[in-house]
Amino acid sequence: MDRLTGIHAVREALEAARPLDRIVIAKGRQDTRTEEIVQLARKQGVPVRFEDRGQLDRLANSKDHQGVVALAAARGASSLEEIIGSAKASQRGLIVLLDGVEDPHNLGAIIRTALAAGAHGVVIPERRAAGLTDTVARASAGALSHLPVAKVTNLVRSMEELKEAGYWLIGLDEQAEQSYTQVDYNSPVGIVLGGEGQGLHELTRRRCDFLVSLPTTGPVKSLNVSVATGVVLFEVLRQRAAKAKA
Amino acid sequence: MDRLTGIHAVREALEAARPLDRIVIAKGRQDTRTEEIVQLARKQGVPVRFEDRGQLDRLANSKDHQGVVALAAARGASSLEEIIGSAKASQRGLIVLLDGVEDPHNLGAIIRTALAAGAHGVVIPERRAAGLTDTVARASAGALSHLPVAKVTNLVRSMEELKEAGYWLIGLDEQAEQSYTQVDYNSPVGIVLGGEGQGLHELTRRRCDFLVSLPTTGPVKSLNVSVATGVVLFEVLRQRAAKAKA
Repeated sequence: MDRLTGIHAVREALEAARPLDRIVIAKGRQDTRTEEIVQLARKQGVPVRFEDRGQLDRLANSKDHQGVVALAAARGASSLEEIIGSAKASQRGLIVLLDGVEDPHNLGAIIRTALAAGAHGVVIPERRAAGLTDTVARASAGALSHLPVAKVTNLVRSMEELKEAGYWLIGLDEQAEQSYTQVDYNSPVGIVLGGEGQGLHELTRRRCDFLVSLPTTGPVKSLNVSVATGVVLFEVLRQRAAKAKA
Repeated sequence: MDRLTGIHAVREALEAARPLDRIVIAKGRQDTRTEEIVQLARKQGVPVRFEDRGQLDRLANSKDHQGVVALAAARGASSLEEIIGSAKASQRGLIVLLDGVEDPHNLGAIIRTALAAGAHGVVIPERRAAGLTDTVARASAGALSHLPVAKVTNLVRSMEELKEAGYWLIGLDEQAEQSYTQVDYNSPVGIVLGGEGQGLHELTRRRCDFLVSLPTTGPVKSLNVSVATGVVLFEVLRQRAAKAKA
């Protein structure tokens, strides 16, 4: 991953709105110029973390970083509005919303699957989720360069925006009684998936129009989140293809 | 992963038919006792590799290995006959055959998906494929302890055995014209999937009764193999549930 080191380089990248995954600042470093970087980062929606100086040395591969390192993102994030706009022409929008997927391999596989299934974009929260790093790009088999991914500060607000734009929101929840095959996906839909550990957060779950589960058997009740995404997205495609024929 | 070091320990494990993932022998080591281990390993179907002594030191975490190290498998392999036998009661066998999946994370995710979808077992080739290691067990989220996995010396012969047992073999091939949704999965079926890079080998492809593809769009034409497995297995379940209702 590309790294920028030093006050000037990081400041310039922020002012030019270059896609940054995050900024790391040495713990204990507090002065006007660092404070300005924190302010700029906040405006741009770039997360800032404070870590030990040794960690910064490793990230920068040198000690010559003035206590500030920025990690470039493999791709600039899109906005939810751009994704909704690009889906308008098709009249059957298909958007994937991830409620805290933390493993970059899973995020990459989901982006790859979403692109192959013809989805219009992926929405991820800015915090507590994998960033758009090189690992994600590799795991996506190149799909990250082709599919818009929006990083949003508030996933629930994005869900509201999607509803206003005419989307039905379908959340995957292993407790749900309704099977994922019992829902009609012929309107514009947003598919909402939870993180690896805990599934959907309560606030996210409550905003979904439908909750559906995958009918599993046996002692291991859940699928890997990228596999679950694939199963649901290809059911959407199957229904839409059947409808187009009818 | 459990390691066994030294001629005696490895020999005893082989004689007791303990599940071993592979045996590693120091290059240049050639004497009667090593040769006996190679012979025993061949009989048990345990792969043998020859590596530098430094590599053995690392594997054994010591220099006290007499040039022989065995890596225990996280689970003992089953046989194809056992899997076919266990499927008989259901009259609708569902078996996954992997033609060279090399990534242990993918193998683990496939085993997890197969178990959740109610498959009766997974068949993998002994060579050029991921073994049943701890990494696979972890990636399977525990499913490896519950689902029989058969390691076979010749995948094509296993396909013939399955056909004789009344199975239809459906191979996933991105070039295929027929979509995976156009096949009837209500008989006993074996789903055949290729490795990450090259897809199905020619010999494997020719033994399939049907070749099907996933209808993808855009520049990235293929899915991660574990995602593709999930999509096809859950289509099998969907069709069988629909048939049960009808």
